[in-house]
Amino acid sequence: MKHLAPPIERVVYELSKLPSVGRKTAQRLAFHLLKLAPEEVASLGQAILELRDKIGLCSRCFNLSDEELCPVCSDTRRDQALLCVVEEPTNLVALERTGVYQGVYHVLGGSLSPLKDVGPDELRIRELVTRIHEGDFREVILATNPNVEGEATAVYIARLLQPVGVAVTRLAQGLPAGGDLEYTDDLTLRRAMEGRRSY
Amino acid sequence: MKHLAPPIERVVYELSKLPSVGRKTAQRLAFHLLKLAPEEVASLGQAILELRDKIGLCSRCFNLSDEELCPVCSDTRRDQALLCVVEEPTNLVALERTGVYQGVYHVLGGSLSPLKDVGPDELRIRELVTRIHEGDFREVILATNPNVEGEATAVYIARLLQPVGVAVTRLAQGLPAGGDLEYTDDLTLRRAMEGRRSY
Repeated sequence: MKHLAPPIERVVYELSKLPSVGRKTAQRLAFHLLKLAPEEVASLGQAILELRDKIGLCSRCFNLSDEELCPVCSDTRRDQALLCVVEEPTNLVALERTGVYQGVYHVLGGSLSPLKDVGPDELRIRELVTRIHEGDFREVILATNPNVEGEATAVYIARLLQPVGVAVTRLAQGLPAGGDLEYTDDLTLRRAMEGRRSY
Repeated sequence: MKHLAPPIERVVYELSKLPSVGRKTAQRLAFHLLKLAPEEVASLGQAILELRDKIGLCSRCFNLSDEELCPVCSDTRRDQALLCVVEEPTNLVALERTGVYQGVYHVLGGSLSPLKDVGPDELRIRELVTRIHEGDFREVILATNPNVEGEATAVYIARLLQPVGVAVTRLAQGLPAGGDLEYTDDLTLRRAMEGRRSY
């Protein structure tokens, strides 16, 4: 790659490590950066440099946060008696985007996966149980992903919470909006059928 | 977007300004950065910060370079009597990737476009003519893009160079490799026909 000046080559190399960014895309992005005003490029570089320094975990729910408490936990208008358990901060963001949920969260940091050597101790399950014991929750919504690991994690947590006596629910599974029965996989169809609701 | 911590939001915002990076992709990239080792993220941020400071234009051919002369111009093994005229540094990179060209380049910085208010004075055409006058070139290859602006630019430069007496050529146009006649547009087909060569 002798024909790229080293500083460009370095940016291309660093960018191409990002997910779904190949060498070609990285090169296009690098040349785009070279066309921008220097302040704009500096702004991106600076934002990335500061990202890891400034971001830690919320001490209450383990969401990503640049303060002791994350934006959700520090929002007093949220329903503090409603707890939604998710695997990752990205799942929290997806739920927040819908605007439909007004309670608080608990981020596990993953799902149980014997294959990846992730057991209950690798997740923030103990912290969850302690939090529920100490808090005054009306309902705990298990919003782990609808796949094998997510299901297993939900079942595991549901059992743990049984003696506590709090209401434990699970997100509905069924047909995705805008879907077509013909192109829906069998498992989704079966769950849609099992979970059918009366009008 | 209250649910994203400000430093994350800032990276998402900066990333989403890049071409073909929407808000969703930017968010995925930002969360990916948060999972990496801090040194790796710092490395990307630093590379981007240094990019604009270190990169300027080659004083001879106007390719992007971190030195007075770009890697191509400072390579003494290149044929200094063969000059290839391209619109942008990215075009140069594409040609270099093929490895088929061993001469030097001249980067115009765009193409003539009355619609975008780009006339000959906005491009490095004067520099090109001076360079050809002062140098000892055997052939000038016009490798502007095969579109209206590129063609117009090539024709304009070819006329300018007529009195100089240097051989001026244009990249061949025709069927792309791996293409199919059935799905080739009329203009390409016509040019392929016009440019047909004997075995």
